[in-house]
Amino acid sequence: MLKRIAVLTSGGDSSGMNAAVRAVVRAGLVSGIEVFGVQKGYQGLIDRLYEKLTTKSVSGVLQRGGTFLQSARCKEMRTEAGLRLACDNLKGLGVEGLVVIGGDGSLAGGLAIHQQGIPVVGIPASIDNDIPYTDLSLGVDTALNNIVRAVDNLKDTASSHTRAFVVEIMGRNCGYLTVASTIASGAEFSLIPEEPYDLGQICKDLRKRYQEGRNNSIIMVAEGAGRAEDIAAQIKDSIGFETRVIVLGHYQRGGSPSAFDRLLGARFGRAAVDGLIQGHTGTMTGLKGTAIALTDLKKVTQAGIRPINPMFPYLANSLSV
Amino acid sequence: MLKRIAVLTSGGDSSGMNAAVRAVVRAGLVSGIEVFGVQKGYQGLIDRLYEKLTTKSVSGVLQRGGTFLQSARCKEMRTEAGLRLACDNLKGLGVEGLVVIGGDGSLAGGLAIHQQGIPVVGIPASIDNDIPYTDLSLGVDTALNNIVRAVDNLKDTASSHTRAFVVEIMGRNCGYLTVASTIASGAEFSLIPEEPYDLGQICKDLRKRYQEGRNNSIIMVAEGAGRAEDIAAQIKDSIGFETRVIVLGHYQRGGSPSAFDRLLGARFGRAAVDGLIQGHTGTMTGLKGTAIALTDLKKVTQAGIRPINPMFPYLANSLSV
Amino acid sequence: MLKRIAVLTSGGDSSGMNAAVRAVVRAGLVSGIEVFGVQKGYQGLIDRLYEKLTTKSVSGVLQRGGTFLQSARCKEMRTEAGLRLACDNLKGLGVEGLVVIGGDGSLAGGLAIHQQGIPVVGIPASIDNDIPYTDLSLGVDTALNNIVRAVDNLKDTASSHTRAFVVEIMGRNCGYLTVASTIASGAEFSLIPEEPYDLGQICKDLRKRYQEGRNNSIIMVAEGAGRAEDIAAQIKDSIGFETRVIVLGHYQRGGSPSAFDRLLGARFGRAAVDGLIQGHTGTMTGLKGTAIALTDLKKVTQAGIRPINPMFPYLANSLSV
Amino acid sequence: MLKRIAVLTSGGDSSGMNAAVRAVVRAGLVSGIEVFGVQKGYQGLIDRLYEKLTTKSVSGVLQRGGTFLQSARCKEMRTEAGLRLACDNLKGLGVEGLVVIGGDGSLAGGLAIHQQGIPVVGIPASIDNDIPYTDLSLGVDTALNNIVRAVDNLKDTASSHTRAFVVEIMGRNCGYLTVASTIASGAEFSLIPEEPYDLGQICKDLRKRYQEGRNNSIIMVAEGAGRAEDIAAQIKDSIGFETRVIVLGHYQRGGSPSAFDRLLGARFGRAAVDGLIQGHTGTMTGLKGTAIALTDLKKVTQAGIRPINPMFPYLANSLSV
Repeated sequence: MLKRIAVLTSGGDSSGMNAAVRAVVRAGLVSGIEVFGVQKGYQGLIDRLYEKLTTKSVSGVLQRGGTFLQSARCKEMRTEAGLRLACDNLKGLGVEGLVVIGGDGSLAGGLAIHQQGIPVVGIPASIDNDIPYTDLSLGVDTALNNIVRAVDNLKDTASSHTRAFVVEIMGRNCGYLTVASTIASGAEFSLIPEEPYDLGQICKDLRKRYQEGRNNSIIMVAEGAGRAEDIAAQIKDSIGFETRVIVLGHYQRGGSPSAFDRLLGARFGRAAVDGLIQGHTGTMTGLKGTAIALTDLKKVTQAGIRPINPMFPYLANSLSV
Repeated sequence: MLKRIAVLTSGGDSSGMNAAVRAVVRAGLVSGIEVFGVQKGYQGLIDRLYEKLTTKSVSGVLQRGGTFLQSARCKEMRTEAGLRLACDNLKGLGVEGLVVIGGDGSLAGGLAIHQQGIPVVGIPASIDNDIPYTDLSLGVDTALNNIVRAVDNLKDTASSHTRAFVVEIMGRNCGYLTVASTIASGAEFSLIPEEPYDLGQICKDLRKRYQEGRNNSIIMVAEGAGRAEDIAAQIKDSIGFETRVIVLGHYQRGGSPSAFDRLLGARFGRAAVDGLIQGHTGTMTGLKGTAIALTDLKKVTQAGIRPINPMFPYLANSLSV
Repeated sequence: MLKRIAVLTSGGDSSGMNAAVRAVVRAGLVSGIEVFGVQKGYQGLIDRLYEKLTTKSVSGVLQRGGTFLQSARCKEMRTEAGLRLACDNLKGLGVEGLVVIGGDGSLAGGLAIHQQGIPVVGIPASIDNDIPYTDLSLGVDTALNNIVRAVDNLKDTASSHTRAFVVEIMGRNCGYLTVASTIASGAEFSLIPEEPYDLGQICKDLRKRYQEGRNNSIIMVAEGAGRAEDIAAQIKDSIGFETRVIVLGHYQRGGSPSAFDRLLGARFGRAAVDGLIQGHTGTMTGLKGTAIALTDLKKVTQAGIRPINPMFPYLANSLSV
Repeated sequence: MLKRIAVLTSGGDSSGMNAAVRAVVRAGLVSGIEVFGVQKGYQGLIDRLYEKLTTKSVSGVLQRGGTFLQSARCKEMRTEAGLRLACDNLKGLGVEGLVVIGGDGSLAGGLAIHQQGIPVVGIPASIDNDIPYTDLSLGVDTALNNIVRAVDNLKDTASSHTRAFVVEIMGRNCGYLTVASTIASGAEFSLIPEEPYDLGQICKDLRKRYQEGRNNSIIMVAEGAGRAEDIAAQIKDSIGFETRVIVLGHYQRGGSPSAFDRLLGARFGRAAVDGLIQGHTGTMTGLKGTAIALTDLKKVTQAGIRPINPMFPYLANSLSV
């Protein structure tokens, strides 16, 4: 029987991480397992920044964005020496299982620790929704709501004036947030890294729209598909409309988590502890329809970027007519 | 090829209905199909309250809660004469397909029309999440966010004082909203119609919590599991704590739809039109993981209430420790 | 020069109390004054529940509703013995000034302590806006936003169906929240304790509205002007419309404070400390236009309920035409 | 007695403009006055874009950001010919009074029309809060809430990592939004055009904070006080911290108006119509404490930028300690 486990959050923060940590702690305690919280992600493993978490430690964190354990990117962890030190520290602490909450890099780190003999279960957390083997990653839903609320604001101004906005959305390799928020906000154009686009054609479409009296437009662009400023400049040069740029940046990331992300975090956290207890380790929790399923971390890390659902770009196009 | 279809919203309104209607209209228009909007649900079919919808008719509706087509409950539709009149009116209008957006009763009405020879595709919309063959119904996510935001507010007061709240949530036969919002808001107890509960035990637990200094509690109760006022009275009698009641009522239903519901509404609307075009009628759209699938309306209406995921009550209990 | 002061929150919690405490602490520290936080209001004074507050104690509290110092209603404080004990404890702690944050009862308690020789400055905090000598009390703006957001939700449903809602708003003696939210949400009727109303006339107006096809209505009622349930029953009996009731209750009180309340809390907190430093004690901070002014607590407690601005009922009526 | 008036919105849109237009329309109708809505600001006066507004025209607009009448900047209006044409059109339409809703430039235009013999009352609407003779302009409160919500999001990330953010806020000549949101969000530094600042000293302070373990900071900068990108670059060069930039841009402007702005819009709208009826024209409505007062437009346009309340920068500094 497990006596002691640890939990850390790593990489870019996402809303719902606190819900997951809270569930890990409470699911652990209810099963008679001590839970240590590691601060600042893998850096904290190396620097021995950890403390025992109680019910009270996670009281009031559910509704807060970010991660109260803090996070960091840690280069040292990618070296053999760093990895060994991290594992030695975990063993020294008597930890028999580790829950890693983070994105692809963080999960790869979790796999490496697992391969050193310390059981690991990962939880996919990334606003980009680029992690495979889960319908959604933790934090995506909150980010999507943040974006949609911002675009609602912009639409008020866009429709009050005759104006186009180019909105830059997070997502270096993955257009999920961009295309999903295009559909959800009723924006007119969606530029994502997964699909080629023809800016000349977009300018033609824009001109046609304006001639028909539909004189405001929102163009959503994933950072992996181009810089909003460049695209706005080209549109302006080509058709002469007043075009404004907004880069939503880190605004997208934080904020009190949505109900969906709190629920998902709770379910992932509980499933991760169950995975450690039942010995289904070296895995990642994932949402599959209405169920939570575990997938081998090896499969996850080898699968590359989660592909975009082809219905989404199709829908974004056909609804903006 | 289809030339003309109609769309209506029926039963209790839910957020995202407008997104679905918008998608039906735009998906229709882009395929060269005229779309008529029927007002006030089946009543409007009987009273011939319909008009052609254009791109402009659905401009600006995406971010609005409720249904701009209006809804109503219609007893006449349950009579043979009412059904025949509705169908005759649809035929008189030259409608070759109908999209029905609503809950179980509304979908049953859609099936009846389909059986009269007018192709129907249904879209499940109900904040209760009681409709089978879809992971989530349209409007559930927004309602859940509404509830969680309200409970966040109550927690501020509960933790500022020494106080218990009993919160009554919608759901006559279905505890989904109650149990999901319990997990998502970190409430302490969840009473749902699907599971028996022991109020005496809850009072004991509450007393124990207070003795441990955890002196505020939120008890969530689905309307199908008891009246909040009665439960609060029993708690107060039994343990003497100051206990307040709040019945969230219709506050839960409306509001600008969440990103999830806007996306789901758009996907359902598009899929319904595709179903009509491709002849997959007498069906209901459903979310299955990341895909939209059609299920026979007969199967849907015969299946009864969607069962609660047993992990949810388990999670609600184990996290509130 | 002052060396040590204390701060407490008392009575019903209101959003922005944390902002005020934070400002008291930081303004104190920056002036070289130690600040003690008293827990659970006057009860904490009697039970000696206090601890030194640091910059870190108030880190992260600004965006949280309620009061992290907790509050309570305290009967003992109204006895001579209770008052003496509270004062003795404060003197024993070496406190040379006290900031009291709360409503009319709490401010009266502050005056009593002041009259015992311990300098007090009060901060008006009450969602009812019933405290005189300030344009607005702390927490009113957040409560108003909570109400307006809820009524926006109800309007979605009301306008999707043919339906009336009666909404019960906090305010036993004071209709401010009710009449202000009527104007801000575009509700149709506003019943407040300060003004007589004729329910028969309202029923006539409702019937006329429905005959004109304006078939949804929101009736806002302050708890001091009647119970929503009774009013709904009378409307239903009299005109036969489907009428729903919602009692917003404690939902109104909490939630992350609005920008206005955070700013007001900060300004009040700073002004209270300045008042203690400069010897302007036995006073209450108040917003007067764009300035913060101090008024004698005696004047405040003797003035009775803040009267309603007569323009507000007039406006509520004339805009709902 | 007045028979016909007109209303327009001009310049940058601000939340609450719809509330003001709605109040003008309803206050007019209830007094037996026809109200014409002019589209696209002064451009619409010149191009004769106006139509009669009814109760129904303004139904549902209260909760929407922007302006349903649309706005525009209009160069032609600054020419004598343009002004004359606008006035001729108004006279041709039989308009006996005009309500102008907008910022300083728009109010100057209103004064010009007034001087041509058509009675005008202005309503100050500008998110910058740069208009004198009113405690707050219409739209400021909503913008402030937008900003504070965004900074709350950023704080989640900032405190999850070790990170500084530089946030650029609207306000070319006026630091109100910047300094008020600094206080309300608990940001650490506030750079505004009204006050000199020493970036070297700020870098020193930042370094000191980090050495004390307070390793996240938010620096708010008004666009009139410097570009966020430049300031971030200097901070990074000087102290080597990871520093991110976010330019909130038009996100600040729109969104469903706050309760405060809806109330203010309603009061301003009503007061403007009363001003026209009572012949107090050539004026602007203003909030003075709890009252609405009219000030001569000439005084307003000659007074220059509204000065910043000196307590605000003082408070921003002293609370960030």
